[in-house]
Amino acid sequence: MTATATSIADELSQVSDHWSPRVVARVNDQYVKVAKLLGELVWHAHPDEDEMFLVVKGRLRIQLEDRDDVLLGPGELFVVPRGVRHNPVAEDEVHIVLVETVTTAHTGDVVVPGTVPVERQLQAGGRPA
Amino acid sequence: MTATATSIADELSQVSDHWSPRVVARVNDQYVKVAKLLGELVWHAHPDEDEMFLVVKGRLRIQLEDRDDVLLGPGELFVVPRGVRHNPVAEDEVHIVLVETVTTAHTGDVVVPGTVPVERQLQAGGRPA
Repeated sequence: MTATATSIADELSQVSDHWSPRVVARVNDQYVKVAKLLGELVWHAHPDEDEMFLVVKGRLRIQLEDRDDVLLGPGELFVVPRGVRHNPVAEDEVHIVLVETVTTAHTGDVVVPGTVPVERQLQAGGRPA
Repeated sequence: MTATATSIADELSQVSDHWSPRVVARVNDQYVKVAKLLGELVWHAHPDEDEMFLVVKGRLRIQLEDRDDVLLGPGELFVVPRGVRHNPVAEDEVHIVLVETVTTAHTGDVVVPGTVPVERQLQAGGRPA
């Protein structure tokens, strides 16, 4: 049986829309996703789920309610704790890897025109069952 | 309140021993770890837990029972599925990020002199509660 590596760069090259995560792997009950960000998403929270951001390219600012912003450059990661209202902001294009629970909703407790349901994030990637 | 980014490179610079993972973050029920590898660990399996390897530097070969080896370079990831016996091999030094369940034992169903209990992996990092 052949098993192959997943290249983060190759997966990112398949992404054209900003703020549209692409599922590239599943580890236990977590999806690993790649995404391209530009501008800002929306203030939201995931009441029961942490969300990990790892920057691959560019600089990401994560605004956090009642806390200082977190600034992330390439090779830096941050876990937004469950329940903490946050808003990712990319002044220039940023490429990221996300790790979040398979049930995590894109924009958490908020639904906006840019909300991407997980089914579409899976279609964009389609690797894991 | 101040929240800060975690630099993978900075965390790796704190690691001196090979095959001794350092916990740097927790996202939901998964630990994110960094490790330096050289040589080979031991054939083992985690019956109920997947294990994600992401290479940051160097080239890693993961031997898998009854399957072809998987070769990983920088920016490439692979999830060893639960129950699959595997053995990571690093001919030259490799730097990796691991994502695995908080309960995952270092060498799975096998205990060898190099087995590092999770308590020591936490002491090595000490970030997440």
